[in-house]
Amino acid sequence: MKVSDLVALDVRFPTSVTQAGSDAVHTDPDYSAAYAIVRTDAGDGVEGHGLTFTIGRGTEVCVAAIEALKPFVVGRDVDDIVGDWRAFSLSLTNDSQLRWIGPEKGAIHLAGAAVINALWDLHAKREKKPLWKVLADMSPRQLVDVVDFRYITDALSPDEALDLLESRAPTRAEREAELLRDGYPAYVTSVGWIGYDDATIERLCGEAMADGWSAMKMKVGQGIDDDVRRARLLRALLGPENRLMMDANQKWDVDEAIASIGRLAPFDPYWMEEPTSPDDVLGHKAIAHAVAPVRLATGEHAHNRVMFKQFFQAGAIGFCQLDACRLAGVNEVLAVLLMAAKFGVPVCPHAGGVGLCEYVQHISAFDHIAVSGSLDDRMVEYAGHLHEHFVDPVEVRGGRYVLPAAPGYSVQMQPASLAEFSFPHGTYWAS
Amino acid sequence: MKVSDLVALDVRFPTSVTQAGSDAVHTDPDYSAAYAIVRTDAGDGVEGHGLTFTIGRGTEVCVAAIEALKPFVVGRDVDDIVGDWRAFSLSLTNDSQLRWIGPEKGAIHLAGAAVINALWDLHAKREKKPLWKVLADMSPRQLVDVVDFRYITDALSPDEALDLLESRAPTRAEREAELLRDGYPAYVTSVGWIGYDDATIERLCGEAMADGWSAMKMKVGQGIDDDVRRARLLRALLGPENRLMMDANQKWDVDEAIASIGRLAPFDPYWMEEPTSPDDVLGHKAIAHAVAPVRLATGEHAHNRVMFKQFFQAGAIGFCQLDACRLAGVNEVLAVLLMAAKFGVPVCPHAGGVGLCEYVQHISAFDHIAVSGSLDDRMVEYAGHLHEHFVDPVEVRGGRYVLPAAPGYSVQMQPASLAEFSFPHGTYWAS
Repeated sequence: MKVSDLVALDVRFPTSVTQAGSDAVHTDPDYSAAYAIVRTDAGDGVEGHGLTFTIGRGTEVCVAAIEALKPFVVGRDVDDIVGDWRAFSLSLTNDSQLRWIGPEKGAIHLAGAAVINALWDLHAKREKKPLWKVLADMSPRQLVDVVDFRYITDALSPDEALDLLESRAPTRAEREAELLRDGYPAYVTSVGWIGYDDATIERLCGEAMADGWSAMKMKVGQGIDDDVRRARLLRALLGPENRLMMDANQKWDVDEAIASIGRLAPFDPYWMEEPTSPDDVLGHKAIAHAVAPVRLATGEHAHNRVMFKQFFQAGAIGFCQLDACRLAGVNEVLAVLLMAAKFGVPVCPHAGGVGLCEYVQHISAFDHIAVSGSLDDRMVEYAGHLHEHFVDPVEVRGGRYVLPAAPGYSVQMQPASLAEFSFPHGTYWAS
Repeated sequence: MKVSDLVALDVRFPTSVTQAGSDAVHTDPDYSAAYAIVRTDAGDGVEGHGLTFTIGRGTEVCVAAIEALKPFVVGRDVDDIVGDWRAFSLSLTNDSQLRWIGPEKGAIHLAGAAVINALWDLHAKREKKPLWKVLADMSPRQLVDVVDFRYITDALSPDEALDLLESRAPTRAEREAELLRDGYPAYVTSVGWIGYDDATIERLCGEAMADGWSAMKMKVGQGIDDDVRRARLLRALLGPENRLMMDANQKWDVDEAIASIGRLAPFDPYWMEEPTSPDDVLGHKAIAHAVAPVRLATGEHAHNRVMFKQFFQAGAIGFCQLDACRLAGVNEVLAVLLMAAKFGVPVCPHAGGVGLCEYVQHISAFDHIAVSGSLDDRMVEYAGHLHEHFVDPVEVRGGRYVLPAAPGYSVQMQPASLAEFSFPHGTYWAS
């Protein structure tokens, strides 16, 4: 069975109209996806679907980058890809010419994520399992063989990774049963977008608590006095026992972050997210030391395993918020999960956007079953937007994700949604 | 005067045929450019030309990214841009939607560099000065106002930058006269590409020494025994008094770099360049401590000022090799020059490729005149490829760059070269 085609689509949802998703830096996001479809010559109609999340303008650049990867995928034997995931990943992330426009960052890396995830989706569908189960059924050795260890061996060697996975293997079944029974804990982001007024926040917060949510995130960074006012409002609504996360979306410089977090600390943030540039490992370290015991979280813009390695080595973050499609797909996510487990940093993946919740439910379930073996301080982000566009949307019940059962990696969109929101010629954008 | 058009071109030279430019990681580069032309409604035929350097595949992704910047440039008043360079730069590097596919890295940042540099080229041509002279004639306050200080104020405040520039201002004229008289010191890279056999290296090395070169770079990283053999050859050819730089092009993991540099240290490398991942600040720091007194150099893949800030703060590098079109053009280069001066790290810009020598001669001349005020440990890279395609090619005499005199930023290509090497429809590629 060979890959017969790789199709790249530009899909944009007009979320800026309602300010859903707005934050201090991304003031008008149109949640979008550079979307990849892998087809084969098997004649069974099974396709692999993957996407990388974007927020409007620039999606077309990622689509061009997916097109650039086409020669590395089309014509490849699917069993060869599945038989050596590491080599396949390297062929996309370390091509001798394409790497120059990264390396391992920016549009080309985002495109690699969409394509690599599409191949994992195809594989999981052929196995007739949800992706988390495909991974949870792989042996420690098979999992280690997926990972590209270039540049991280000073933090985690393949042998250490193997030992870690083997130590969790005997008890995988217990944790799988636990998650199938109870679901995976989650928190909700869609109550506190920065473009929402107080009345909207109050209403959404009340609705969320009624639905069983006990952890919520608010956006900060649009002016510290306003941030403090909103934090006071949210904390009053939530009471002292519920968790309130705060997210500055990279708005502050280092010294400004330290001062701002000092003002917000009385409202007991469970974490302070993206206080400054996502590239600034040393800046996060300085902030973390200054604001302890408030813990920092970052990761949605950390572009590869080398960045996470340094955040872990520096003790700069208390929570790892890896992104399933900014890292180069399942392969690089696995590298980061393994390092996080070694360094004892809980992984609470970035979600929301479009398709991210669908993705990361698989990642966190697998992490618990086979890698970290713990739910302490771990929650998956949830935002209630755009799930209706997916064939197998996430299901959340009582503030927890219900483990997905459908085969694949869950980001396949409804054909009608692709037709309506393809940019610029879909029916929505053309009209 | 308004910008009436921004044209993006994909230009590729088939350098992989001769292995010119080959290294341990980039084994078959076709030196290329995503090329931007800014036109105005002035009717005087003056255009701004800028490029970002690429190595073949993926250039089309950067061209798509330049196209994505078109709405931020076309229709803008040129005097408004020149009157607030910082705001213009921010409009390209921090757009609320486009930044998601970076932020400030990868294809979109490379594209920003091409466009920002094209505007500086236009401005310099209108001023009828070479770019270095435009910058050298700006006041300290005007220069500070160009810089985007977001995320670097913990290392360098605007006031510190102003003080630094003012301290050099009274003696600018002396250094300008010195450079006009003597040129700027350089070293040559084009003798030691990894794809060259020993006989070729011996011949090119001999020719270079005859031409007055006393500093040369070799590529390493294709196997330590082979690296040692080649290092021995080069050191024997150069004698003990000449400088031999070594460049591993990101080939090694941290521990491997320490071991390899240990093997190469007896051949007295003037610096060891790109020993590992360009994202790995902490890795460079660990290597630097382990291999001292050998000094590390990096920067051609350091994507923004936040990365350089950390390299400086960590004491991880002995030489700063900023790239004129990986950083977001003149503006971000200026930020890095200022930080390098504060931290006392000499700037030896990355060049070679296509157009990079043309660019960086301006950067280093300005750095000496107005920022660092020193030539100690400072050299501009030189490679003898592809200069014939430029309207105002670099001139090198006795191992030194002759300061450019023609107005602009020197990367405007000959129309015939654009016609021949445009990809895929230029006459070379079509045939």
